[in-house]
Amino acid sequence: MKRLAVVAFGGNALLKAGEDGTIVQQEANAFHTGEKLLLLLNNNYNLCITHGNGPQVGNILLANNAGHKQYGLPEMPLDICVAYSQGFIGYILEQQLRNVLRAHEMDRDIISIITQVLVSKDDPAFNSPNKPIGPYYTKEEAEKIAKDTASKFAEDPGGRGFRKVVASPKPLVISNVDTIRKISREGQIVIAVGGGGIPAYYAAENKLQGIDAVIDKDLASALLASQINADKFFILTDVPKVFLNFNTPQQKAIDRMTISEARKYLEEGQFTEGSMAPKVLAAIHFVEHTGKDTIITSTDRLGIDDGGTRVVIV
Amino acid sequence: MKRLAVVAFGGNALLKAGEDGTIVQQEANAFHTGEKLLLLLNNNYNLCITHGNGPQVGNILLANNAGHKQYGLPEMPLDICVAYSQGFIGYILEQQLRNVLRAHEMDRDIISIITQVLVSKDDPAFNSPNKPIGPYYTKEEAEKIAKDTASKFAEDPGGRGFRKVVASPKPLVISNVDTIRKISREGQIVIAVGGGGIPAYYAAENKLQGIDAVIDKDLASALLASQINADKFFILTDVPKVFLNFNTPQQKAIDRMTISEARKYLEEGQFTEGSMAPKVLAAIHFVEHTGKDTIITSTDRLGIDDGGTRVVIV
Repeated sequence: MKRLAVVAFGGNALLKAGEDGTIVQQEANAFHTGEKLLLLLNNNYNLCITHGNGPQVGNILLANNAGHKQYGLPEMPLDICVAYSQGFIGYILEQQLRNVLRAHEMDRDIISIITQVLVSKDDPAFNSPNKPIGPYYTKEEAEKIAKDTASKFAEDPGGRGFRKVVASPKPLVISNVDTIRKISREGQIVIAVGGGGIPAYYAAENKLQGIDAVIDKDLASALLASQINADKFFILTDVPKVFLNFNTPQQKAIDRMTISEARKYLEEGQFTEGSMAPKVLAAIHFVEHTGKDTIITSTDRLGIDDGGTRVVIV
Repeated sequence: MKRLAVVAFGGNALLKAGEDGTIVQQEANAFHTGEKLLLLLNNNYNLCITHGNGPQVGNILLANNAGHKQYGLPEMPLDICVAYSQGFIGYILEQQLRNVLRAHEMDRDIISIITQVLVSKDDPAFNSPNKPIGPYYTKEEAEKIAKDTASKFAEDPGGRGFRKVVASPKPLVISNVDTIRKISREGQIVIAVGGGGIPAYYAAENKLQGIDAVIDKDLASALLASQINADKFFILTDVPKVFLNFNTPQQKAIDRMTISEARKYLEEGQFTEGSMAPKVLAAIHFVEHTGKDTIITSTDRLGIDDGGTRVVIV
């Protein structure tokens, strides 16, 4: 009986900092990302893959904005842009992973599923949207759009102008989770919950409706991993392990931490907000709900025996 | 035991001629499209839905072009734009169909799958690309881009300028067809092969790679319907039935035709190229490979007893 792993890649699995993001680059990066999954596949794992979409959805929002200004195209809201990015990244990851498997004479079906994730309109995050998205505007432009569209803007700390800010509500329900569980347990590799999922909520008359928001990709992946009862959850990042006293002379890598230790470190402010902190929270969610381990590590160390920080229940 | 139907919607299931294509319009259209499936669902059918993407991918290509010019974003090739459109349309169709089912207290899972479709680089269509896509250019602009990118352009018959033209090769293999067959037979509603599928081929070193091409949506849907051994194939269009001597005083609706009659009418030039002709070809493909019937009709008459033209084997 194979074990089932959920592997959460960052958006930089396809587009790395400093790159232009041409499709040739993104395909090559996706191929190398796919190669990192071989150790798990050879080690008797079934796989469900999730991924970020930060750089890609940023470009989609910009193109959307330019298309509106130049050609008068209707502006597409954020949920649609996330759907675009799921189509794009799912396709490229699937295609290049097929190439990796073919090169190693392995045969698995790979299925990319468009994934909606339910959030609550009452989530307190909607009271203080703080996740910047899309193009930079001047103060005057931002004020006008804010007035016209009831959206909020915030000044970029780097002085590049003003950007729209949206909420990052908690993921509540992953759509199609029964099918994802079933087909990934049967051995197909599933790609899902891209960019944390397309955020949707129940609006008037109980109608499902997209919403301007961004769901944390690691939290959505942890929810998926719990709901499909995965045997292991891998959260990939830039560093090989989680560190205490990061970037100080006392810096110390963590090989193993219990969820109570993880909570204590979070309270101490050991982990950077918006970076390592949400990953540790995602790890805690999975471990607490399943009793199984989460590994936080770099893509290069995925599946290596002593790789990463192991988050455990006790 | 439920029967399995493949239903091929046009791109105008979401965006109708003359509309701006705002997301509010497209959502409302998707809801009404979803309602048309109720007769089939209530008539003991499982469903696999396919759809066009013409108007949407047109807008995506324009936005892509504007984003390149205004923000210097990398231009995304056509296969990526089709992947965007599959994410977008799959999401909206799935979401609104969920709303339709909820309003009728029905419970089915709905799964949108990103679909690659294999074509051959040796397909003769690549010798004479004729499918116009994307923005209009002046003659000078078109000549420059054609030279820089080895792409072909053709003058718009309506005098609006020059547009890139791409090939429309024959679909050969639908990816993930085993999973699509399995989950749609089990009762989940599957949305797949959007826009005829993302065209891909085996390039150097046998690597799967996207290609600048557009696959006919009805032909790809017919291939899918045959490969999942559907019990019925519905091709939806603007007219309730297929006509002989269309738009002449001798116009006559066809209630039923065998595939040999259909072939004869095609040879006689009874059906408009690029419009009804490919739908009749798609119908023939399915009927010939399965022995089951294809119905060509309008969305409004889907599932109605005397609706449409029935294409049969004998």
